[in-house]
Amino acid sequence: DCIEKDPIQYALPPQSATPTLVLELDQGTPDSHVPRDPRLIRLTGTHPFNVEAPLTELFNEGFLTSPELFYVRNHGAVPHVRDEDVLDWEFTVEGMVRKPMKISVRQLLRDFDQVTYPVTLVCAGNRRKEQNMVRKSKGFSWGAAGLSTALFTGVPLKELIEHAVPLKGARYVCMEGADKLPNGSYGTSVKLNWVMDPNRGIMLAHKMNGEMLRPDHGKPIRVVIPGQIGGRSVKWLKRLIVTATPSDNWYHTYDNRILPTMVDPDEAAKNPAWWKDERYAIYDLSTNSAIASPAHDEIFDTQGVSKSYTVKGYAYSGGGRRITRVELSLDRGKSWKLANVGYAEDRYRAYENHELFGGRLDMSWRETCFCWCFWSLPIQISELLDAKDIVVRAMDESMNVQPRDMYWSVLGMMNNCWYRVLIHREEHRLHFEHPTQPALIPGGWMERAKKSGRDLTDGFWGEGVLSAAIPE
Amino acid sequence: DCIEKDPIQYALPPQSATPTLVLELDQGTPDSHVPRDPRLIRLTGTHPFNVEAPLTELFNEGFLTSPELFYVRNHGAVPHVRDEDVLDWEFTVEGMVRKPMKISVRQLLRDFDQVTYPVTLVCAGNRRKEQNMVRKSKGFSWGAAGLSTALFTGVPLKELIEHAVPLKGARYVCMEGADKLPNGSYGTSVKLNWVMDPNRGIMLAHKMNGEMLRPDHGKPIRVVIPGQIGGRSVKWLKRLIVTATPSDNWYHTYDNRILPTMVDPDEAAKNPAWWKDERYAIYDLSTNSAIASPAHDEIFDTQGVSKSYTVKGYAYSGGGRRITRVELSLDRGKSWKLANVGYAEDRYRAYENHELFGGRLDMSWRETCFCWCFWSLPIQISELLDAKDIVVRAMDESMNVQPRDMYWSVLGMMNNCWYRVLIHREEHRLHFEHPTQPALIPGGWMERAKKSGRDLTDGFWGEGVLSAAIPE
Repeated sequence: DCIEKDPIQYALPPQSATPTLVLELDQGTPDSHVPRDPRLIRLTGTHPFNVEAPLTELFNEGFLTSPELFYVRNHGAVPHVRDEDVLDWEFTVEGMVRKPMKISVRQLLRDFDQVTYPVTLVCAGNRRKEQNMVRKSKGFSWGAAGLSTALFTGVPLKELIEHAVPLKGARYVCMEGADKLPNGSYGTSVKLNWVMDPNRGIMLAHKMNGEMLRPDHGKPIRVVIPGQIGGRSVKWLKRLIVTATPSDNWYHTYDNRILPTMVDPDEAAKNPAWWKDERYAIYDLSTNSAIASPAHDEIFDTQGVSKSYTVKGYAYSGGGRRITRVELSLDRGKSWKLANVGYAEDRYRAYENHELFGGRLDMSWRETCFCWCFWSLPIQISELLDAKDIVVRAMDESMNVQPRDMYWSVLGMMNNCWYRVLIHREEHRLHFEHPTQPALIPGGWMERAKKSGRDLTDGFWGEGVLSAAIPE
Repeated sequence: DCIEKDPIQYALPPQSATPTLVLELDQGTPDSHVPRDPRLIRLTGTHPFNVEAPLTELFNEGFLTSPELFYVRNHGAVPHVRDEDVLDWEFTVEGMVRKPMKISVRQLLRDFDQVTYPVTLVCAGNRRKEQNMVRKSKGFSWGAAGLSTALFTGVPLKELIEHAVPLKGARYVCMEGADKLPNGSYGTSVKLNWVMDPNRGIMLAHKMNGEMLRPDHGKPIRVVIPGQIGGRSVKWLKRLIVTATPSDNWYHTYDNRILPTMVDPDEAAKNPAWWKDERYAIYDLSTNSAIASPAHDEIFDTQGVSKSYTVKGYAYSGGGRRITRVELSLDRGKSWKLANVGYAEDRYRAYENHELFGGRLDMSWRETCFCWCFWSLPIQISELLDAKDIVVRAMDESMNVQPRDMYWSVLGMMNNCWYRVLIHREEHRLHFEHPTQPALIPGGWMERAKKSGRDLTDGFWGEGVLSAAIPE
């Protein structure tokens, strides 16, 4: 039976203006065929293209992000696929399967059931700039906007793999993209078991917010793995290889890992064993949150009409786990206030057998959470006037809470310590300061602490508090 | 094909001596029919029976715990079931199912496939004594031994529920035991979706370490839910009810929840809405670890022959997630050492179609982790002589790491802050001190801190370090 709600209760994509011009910056690079949005902040110089949106602009778009503001992590040049060649794009399902296949996008659209649902993708490096301020890692400096959400449409990867019939002993699905990189194509793997689990919703997507994938996002097809770091969602997909062991692709081994914190760059370079231990590979996202409002450098006049200021931000977790609470502290963790959390994702669950963008909205039976949520809390002006800072932490349904202390590792990944915004009182104005700004953009209290020679490694924001408590 | 390894590589249960005597303590209580082990530490007086083993004895038994040392959480009197009545014990599968059923243990044994695998059960209150030292909660004082591991044998709950054919709209499986309590029988629920997920391994068990369940552990049948708090694994099972909403049993609502930390006992009593929010109900365990060796009050003579002392302990996580690292700090979190972790559970995975205790050892295909792991690290005597304490933290595959700060809540549950053992140097001897001792047993640095009027709420072990950094 077809339950249709009218009017539509769920979020639809924000207004989007597909960029049509190639930016001057990109001309003369291998990406000179890719029109882009000039607002995106480049994190690795001009090329390759690694970008996040300004945090405020990302947040203000709401639950769904327009494709032009969606963060991008490219390792090299974007494969050039003309519109007229999209349907003929082919990829394989091979390895430990009874029926190896070569499938075109045309077949994917014609022969398989299509589904649509929202997924938040997050780069494992989100908030890495903070880690780099504590101690330089081997990764570039993401701010807190290394994540974005879209409605993806495609085919459950489970159906394709089942079609090929995995052989006994098969345990992993390796993926390979079309990008040509110094160490081969980008590739990685996930467990076959996860692919076969409908709760995990792993998809082969060809649409994002109802339109064909744009070049930076994997045109014409990409894998989308909800609840896991973006680095597992291979773009420009060419090969799916079912195997007994994890991917041996260079990028699978030497990227997206959290080596133990005491492994420094020297040790990591000397001893390859650190990189071969699958326990250190990141799959599911950890619990995380950040403050979007107040923005960095925002100034609030407390003599206005408002008696309160509403602090806002986002939170997410991994593995399909729901964020179960978000808390704010104005006294550095001594006491906490409970924020209001909105779960925009849940509004899609009310629909059954409802078609969206050519795919069935496949959410009514699923209980896992694949998306960020937004939280907010009005705070009395008088309280803000008395506070030195605002910190936020979230907890997910595994009952793991974000820690005070940062976990530093050589690649600088999955930073999820409390997000702290400093409050400077300037007469009757409050001046807010975030920890950092993305890329090489100056600003933030971490930079100031570092410049004034304070030790940020001590877990207490460079104020020397914990160091004092450590035996000499 | 039947792959048999010889000799057996996995752990078998430790030597067990079934208690045959009813202890004097239990005579005259409703449990006067239950023989018990006198070593167990009673946490709620004589009756009801809530106990943990001495941590060292538990740890020394190894990966599997004997039924007589296995922790017990009873809400009231233990149902009395004579051996000759076991096979006639009946339970129902009812509610939103096409074929409601009444099933006897005889049928359960005769008509269904039997499986065997190891599961660690953990009480949500494990380590609550530490929370009670910071601020009294509404729960009694578990030490760090509120967990135990056994080989359970039984029938996947999935098969029983599928047999009854859930109806459209069914989302939960409620469970009810035979115990008679002031607020009805003990009952709770889990998601139907989890029951149907073979990776979660939810089982209806009738054997523990190869023998019939003992009275304190659910004789003749109980639910075993791997990776979740023990409070969901209903004992003395009488009813399974498939529903559209979570259990409305009193114990489901008012126990096993982590209310937000700012909800104090008054507020929790005044406002029932806090108890009705399913987001605060605990299901999956969070990442946790503790130090078993050195034991509390252990004295180590550094002038002996050994140049090092091996620190040892356990770690576990929930939802099937593997512990991916365990780290020790001798300088209060400034630097960390990587411990060696042994995964005894993995040794069962090598066997396929292998029978154990009348059930198929169902581990070869499963990738989830249901058990604790043991870690160890030799530390140089010179380092221990210089250190004030040893702290341990673990990380699981969700990349969530145990936090420095305790999360206090009104029921006092899921305490998983760093476990800290203090080192007192007494001439050439090291004297170790754990944070607390279970129940009302005196001892531990938290008790001393509290007695001397120090504020344990500040997240830095009563040393006033963080308070100093908090704005007045």
